[in-house]
Amino acid sequence: MEFKVTHTCSTSGARCGEMVTAHGRFETPVFMPVGTQGSVKALSPQDLEQAGIGILLANTYHLYLRPGHRLIERLGGLHRFMSWKGAILTDSGGYQVYSLSKLRKISEEGVTFQSHVDGSTHFIGPREAMEIQRALGSDVIMAFDECAPYPADEAYVRNSVRLTSQWAAICRECPRGDSQALFGIVQGGMVPELREQSARDIVSMGFDGYALGGLSVGEDRPTRRRVIQETVPFLPSDKPRYLMGVGKPEDILDGVRAGIDMFDCVLPTRNARNGALFTRQGTLSIKNACYAEDDRPLDEGCTCYTCTHFSRAYLRHLFMAKELLAYRLNTLHNLHYYMGLMTDVRKAIQEGRFAGFCEDFFERSGE
Amino acid sequence: MEFKVTHTCSTSGARCGEMVTAHGRFETPVFMPVGTQGSVKALSPQDLEQAGIGILLANTYHLYLRPGHRLIERLGGLHRFMSWKGAILTDSGGYQVYSLSKLRKISEEGVTFQSHVDGSTHFIGPREAMEIQRALGSDVIMAFDECAPYPADEAYVRNSVRLTSQWAAICRECPRGDSQALFGIVQGGMVPELREQSARDIVSMGFDGYALGGLSVGEDRPTRRRVIQETVPFLPSDKPRYLMGVGKPEDILDGVRAGIDMFDCVLPTRNARNGALFTRQGTLSIKNACYAEDDRPLDEGCTCYTCTHFSRAYLRHLFMAKELLAYRLNTLHNLHYYMGLMTDVRKAIQEGRFAGFCEDFFERSGE
Repeated sequence: MEFKVTHTCSTSGARCGEMVTAHGRFETPVFMPVGTQGSVKALSPQDLEQAGIGILLANTYHLYLRPGHRLIERLGGLHRFMSWKGAILTDSGGYQVYSLSKLRKISEEGVTFQSHVDGSTHFIGPREAMEIQRALGSDVIMAFDECAPYPADEAYVRNSVRLTSQWAAICRECPRGDSQALFGIVQGGMVPELREQSARDIVSMGFDGYALGGLSVGEDRPTRRRVIQETVPFLPSDKPRYLMGVGKPEDILDGVRAGIDMFDCVLPTRNARNGALFTRQGTLSIKNACYAEDDRPLDEGCTCYTCTHFSRAYLRHLFMAKELLAYRLNTLHNLHYYMGLMTDVRKAIQEGRFAGFCEDFFERSGE
Repeated sequence: MEFKVTHTCSTSGARCGEMVTAHGRFETPVFMPVGTQGSVKALSPQDLEQAGIGILLANTYHLYLRPGHRLIERLGGLHRFMSWKGAILTDSGGYQVYSLSKLRKISEEGVTFQSHVDGSTHFIGPREAMEIQRALGSDVIMAFDECAPYPADEAYVRNSVRLTSQWAAICRECPRGDSQALFGIVQGGMVPELREQSARDIVSMGFDGYALGGLSVGEDRPTRRRVIQETVPFLPSDKPRYLMGVGKPEDILDGVRAGIDMFDCVLPTRNARNGALFTRQGTLSIKNACYAEDDRPLDEGCTCYTCTHFSRAYLRHLFMAKELLAYRLNTLHNLHYYMGLMTDVRKAIQEGRFAGFCEDFFERSGE
């Protein structure tokens, strides 16, 4: 994987860059839609391509449980399995083990947990996480980490940082595919000293990129912004920086301002399925009765398939009638909104007007 | 609407034709996928266009209840509402009132029933059915009929034929759009004399086309075949003949052989959502464990998006994981199968080898 910074902002940490993987190139800051089970819900690979998606995220935990990484490997890897020509980043499974599985037990070696699918018992540690991601063949793989809950006392977070560093060192030495980039994850909860310590530990091991984990777990936006701003300075500027699981448009702008290059979040896709749609005039809940006879597109001027073909009235009808097409049309629109936002962000940085762009955005959205 | 027969089969009643509507032309025999609530489930208008669909069916009963025909009319009619450029046939609502609604009460004037959506009370008679379809603006509209259940005693069927004729005469005189073709419906259950009487009644009124209703309601295939064969001779040969709600591929071939031009059925789309997929080697249930590692497409040689991009293993994974993409990919394939079947049928008739085509088909499918 190659990464180079192409533009920097003079008034913030924001920057533009380019990543080249074995499955294509894309520009940063980039947003990665989430394809948890090897499918971005309701969309086909063709839909993703047409939406301009260069890289998506798939979940190691889910694919390990079903259909199994061995099966995917035998069928030629995840790209071939899901017929996706672009790049894929897989998470380490750490976060899902903590958030989705039952009866998890953390030891020095890793985590024993019960599957959310069938209740069966499993163990994932750093070696297992690396082996699963090697088998999946994703372009960017993540070190196995311990994600502290929120809130957590300092002793818990300190231990989580220790385990994360210990496991990262093991991941660093595990076999992986020739073209697979390995990112380390910085933990440390909301505690400045622990974030610094975690960042120093992880950076000292030398990874292809660095992620901030353990955010968007319930903390408020100012806290999140503070942690990001305090942590980024400890990360090398020539490697990509990835803010995991974030976020809302305003959180993404906060991240970009602090120097983050990569984002992922279920928000645009999950909200779409719940009828919450992003527009440049704010969020719109399509089930609202006021849209029943609204002949306008979701977002006047939006060029997505949904907005160029269907009215709010039709989209409301599909949603109320639980028609499957509703989920696809809504998801296409929300992803188009996110992709447009990232294009605008990059253009503003490249043209030296990112500060003004943010001001306008926050003024318009009231955030 | 224009209709002309272009080819006839020398060994059966089969024929090819062409229909021209205000929303495009298509060849017959034609299969119409069902877009009950103004959407062929899981597919976009673009998907339908790419699958070669020339005409689809929408349900008057459903659209009347939700979102309401008045709303659709105010928004420019059903074509515009659902962004569909091709032709649309709407049924009269009669069949759905009987099969879906609760507490229905039939009188000489029509049917009072409770909505399956919210339990509210409604009345639809011939005038209401015509007015709803006028408002929807579909290209082919259907007379309001009384569909006898199966089995039904002869007295019930006789009354159903009487009401159907009485209501057809009213429908014939109701106002409708300039470019809307009106089809009459022949009832009569499985009773030859009543089918003949119903056909004579309806044909004497002069409609733009004639449908056989009250079939595929539980009777066996030989009975269905017999009723079709006994009824078609009473229909004029220069008007389209439509076999409502039918059916399986073998039922469609039976119908074509007897001289039917139009078919509709939820089978390809509903089966797709249940994981039952049509292939030229028979039906395949994608959830079967034997497909877990099957790297082949659903149907070797099929040119649909699903078969040219995804393995049975991936489709099984999507289905087992309840991924929304499963429903779209499966539906695309099943509709492609049906469209291919109809293309093959028309070609065989045009090339004077329809008898052999049927023999081959039934031999291969074992039906």
